Amino acid sequence: MKAEKIPDIIVGRLPIYLRALQRMADNGLKTTSSQELGEHVGISAAQIRKDISQFGDFGKQGTGYSIAYLLDKLREILKVDRIWEVALIGAGDMGHALARYQGFTNRGFHIVMVFDNDKEKVGEKINGFIIEDTEKMVERLKSAGIKMAMLTVPAQAAQGVTDKLVQAGVKAILNYAPINLNVPPSVKVQYIDPSTHLQRMTYYL
Amino acid sequence: MKAEKIPDIIVGRLPIYLRALQRMADNGLKTTSSQELGEHVGISAAQIRKDISQFGDFGKQGTGYSIAYLLDKLREILKVDRIWEVALIGAGDMGHALARYQGFTNRGFHIVMVFDNDKEKVGEKINGFIIEDTEKMVERLKSAGIKMAMLTVPAQAAQGVTDKLVQAGVKAILNYAPINLNVPPSVKVQYIDPSTHLQRMTYYL
Repeated sequence: MKAEKIPDIIVGRLPIYLRALQRMADNGLKTTSSQELGEHVGISAAQIRKDISQFGDFGKQGTGYSIAYLLDKLREILKVDRIWEVALIGAGDMGHALARYQGFTNRGFHIVMVFDNDKEKVGEKINGFIIEDTEKMVERLKSAGIKMAMLTVPAQAAQGVTDKLVQAGVKAILNYAPINLNVPPSVKVQYIDPSTHLQRMTYYL
Repeated sequence: MKAEKIPDIIVGRLPIYLRALQRMADNGLKTTSSQELGEHVGISAAQIRKDISQFGDFGKQGTGYSIAYLLDKLREILKVDRIWEVALIGAGDMGHALARYQGFTNRGFHIVMVFDNDKEKVGEKINGFIIEDTEKMVERLKSAGIKMAMLTVPAQAAQGVTDKLVQAGVKAILNYAPINLNVPPSVKVQYIDPSTHLQRMTYYL
């Protein structure tokens, strides 16, 4: 299995499969089929079989996939068979919502630091975290070896903070600021921008 | 121009172009090139030219694109040359953050109603909205003719609420609940799930 060889579009679907399988397991199911999984995720059974076969031979003809086994394998492939420490930059409304969000830990992530550049916020607590000064961010991230960050700062501040994150050795950024970020090729960025998602749907209305 | 003929993958890039162009306009720029726009959005100039040419002949050889003209055209194509009324379902942390979010109105959207099924929250105010009872949701959405909703309810409640949204005539749902939704083909769903986005990056770390 060569990680480099899996097309990005397939990598993008694996977390969707993982989420659906995790839900099936939570509901007490032991096995599933590409047909059943497909109904849960809105992707064809053929596509699912093709995607999963990229990583090895997981299903048995006639008996379907073992959910526990597929969960293990998908977690291993996506490297969420461990817990990643994540820094949260920006303690506004969205930062607060993310700091309190319950859906990270059981999916491989744990927010460990929260930063803001507003001196009035520094020292305040969110969900047990003390908000730290962005001025100390690079040093803190470096010494803790943090590789992932979530960015919920205003658009005009986002590129500057990103440059510091890159300098600190962060390799993956989930960006909530409504602006495209320039990063070196070794750094991954994913974007969450509700207006962009909404605009993608109005086209069809 | 036949709306039906534009591939979904191109439609998905148009809001990104729109966002970058809007930012250029805010910064006082009047014209841009596919090269310059490409640097802002991280997409090749050739791809941008190809995408934009799907909708007509917007650029002049040598002088580039008029930002104002391209903005008008993209807004028209994406149907955000108007304001869409959006209902927000779920007044938890994420719902509160979205109700207060400033980035909707100038991009074509306006939250007009907020619903929750928690009787303790019903009647409370968020950012000027009075939280209404989900029991009255179908009737309220129908009579107001709302076609778009943002869903920030827990995963286990999401499909039930979605069925009601569909019944009320909603055609586009931005789903923050970490679960895939089953909807008729006439209804569009977009997903925002931070853990899924993070898992898409850990693969490469």
